[in-house]
Amino acid sequence: MAFTVVVVGVGLIGGSFALAVRRAGLADRVLGVSSPATLEKARNLGVIDEGLLLEEAVPKADLVLLSATIHSIIETIPRLSGLVKQHALVTDAGSTKRAIMHAAEAAPGLPFIGGHPMAGKELSGVEQAEASLFEGRPWVLTPPRDTDEQGVAKLKTIVEAIGARPLVMPAEEHDAVVARTSHLPQLLSTALAASLDGHFGNESPVLAGPGLIDATRLALSPYSVWKDILDTNRDEITQAMSDFLEQWKEQHARLADNVDLRDQFGKATGFARRLRQ
Amino acid sequence: MAFTVVVVGVGLIGGSFALAVRRAGLADRVLGVSSPATLEKARNLGVIDEGLLLEEAVPKADLVLLSATIHSIIETIPRLSGLVKQHALVTDAGSTKRAIMHAAEAAPGLPFIGGHPMAGKELSGVEQAEASLFEGRPWVLTPPRDTDEQGVAKLKTIVEAIGARPLVMPAEEHDAVVARTSHLPQLLSTALAASLDGHFGNESPVLAGPGLIDATRLALSPYSVWKDILDTNRDEITQAMSDFLEQWKEQHARLADNVDLRDQFGKATGFARRLRQ
Repeated sequence: MAFTVVVVGVGLIGGSFALAVRRAGLADRVLGVSSPATLEKARNLGVIDEGLLLEEAVPKADLVLLSATIHSIIETIPRLSGLVKQHALVTDAGSTKRAIMHAAEAAPGLPFIGGHPMAGKELSGVEQAEASLFEGRPWVLTPPRDTDEQGVAKLKTIVEAIGARPLVMPAEEHDAVVARTSHLPQLLSTALAASLDGHFGNESPVLAGPGLIDATRLALSPYSVWKDILDTNRDEITQAMSDFLEQWKEQHARLADNVDLRDQFGKATGFARRLRQ
Repeated sequence: MAFTVVVVGVGLIGGSFALAVRRAGLADRVLGVSSPATLEKARNLGVIDEGLLLEEAVPKADLVLLSATIHSIIETIPRLSGLVKQHALVTDAGSTKRAIMHAAEAAPGLPFIGGHPMAGKELSGVEQAEASLFEGRPWVLTPPRDTDEQGVAKLKTIVEAIGARPLVMPAEEHDAVVARTSHLPQLLSTALAASLDGHFGNESPVLAGPGLIDATRLALSPYSVWKDILDTNRDEITQAMSDFLEQWKEQHARLADNVDLRDQFGKATGFARRLRQ
């Protein structure tokens, strides 16, 4: 039986998903919904078979992936209720989950299961898409409260087939964890680079080693990517920032008072090593 | 004329320098001063020709590189004054420079020029040494106030011959800059990992992407490496930490008050991009 995938927002993530489901033999047809320029690029690159309007594409879909920005996903969801055919599934790739699940639960009869593939690259855009992007990466699934277990099982199978590791959890848990593992490191890198920009002015320091390159890699991310994430996970992020602030003040006080930092380094190296196991 | 290099502390940096000066055809003979176990490894790896005691090795040297820990360099310096032969040069590879220059200026007649190769690896030890470690990296030289310009010129030639970029500056300027470009990122990575260790306990978060891996790479560094750096650059580091604290508090307040972070991201991406040019 033919299986049609519709990708709404054909960028790095949406494009890579399109390539991955086709490579895995899961999709007979991949349709894209995006700007005309992006759709043309995606067609030329062989990422999608055809570009259509949302209203044309969604009724043909067995699976819809919403992979634009969070606010755009939230705006698209209410438009889907009347368009989705029976037994189809809708999921998304938004980086925060509570606000999106809230929108989905308000859409009558929408067969929606939230998702967040924890994969990416420094560069974005459909030109960067690759079928292997999700291999070995976590792919979170956040079902709604009244979920269809069959739908979750089906989506897990698809995620596994493209090489990712499905992890099912409530949207609340997802948002609390990524506030610390993703959003906090981003804001630290941004604050470090902004603080050094303030100190060094328009000069770059000549004495920059590989440590500073690593530490400022996330700072390259543009605000356009982060605006929606900060907007929709504000409470968890400000809490994680406060926790970090306490840690920072303690390290500062110990250093100023000539007390050693052995404990802090011990905890930090332990955590960093466990993360790599 | 035969040229003998003596490396005191044959680890990653000292061993790599030994390999690099030999590869560049600068040294006819490389002698090592280290623990007996390290000297045996270094000989077996072909990093040094012979291992000797400090008092035996230094009188044979045309160039001495002190590449142990900062405190060990500071303890070694007073022992060198009577040992160094005429026209020889002594330099070091310590990560902070003011305390070492202070010790060197107190050693009567010691022909000392401070140095800091900005190179490294995640792993340490002579087994990790490689002749190409310094290629393209900054190598800071901090001459004393009453410096011998010929000595500086000679050392610059050697540093260039092994592929590094010599940068001559006062020890005070060096320490102020690296407090921000090296020590601050280290302490941020340590504080992030320690804060997450406190939050997640003995579990590692399952939702860790490549950003967290980058952000916790420096946190793998053991306290033993950082103790001396923190001890000898405390004033500059605490100042850099305070500057960061202001930036962090501002970002936190803006986020909590629903004010956008466009300016902070703009400054940060600008700095991160300039750093990569």
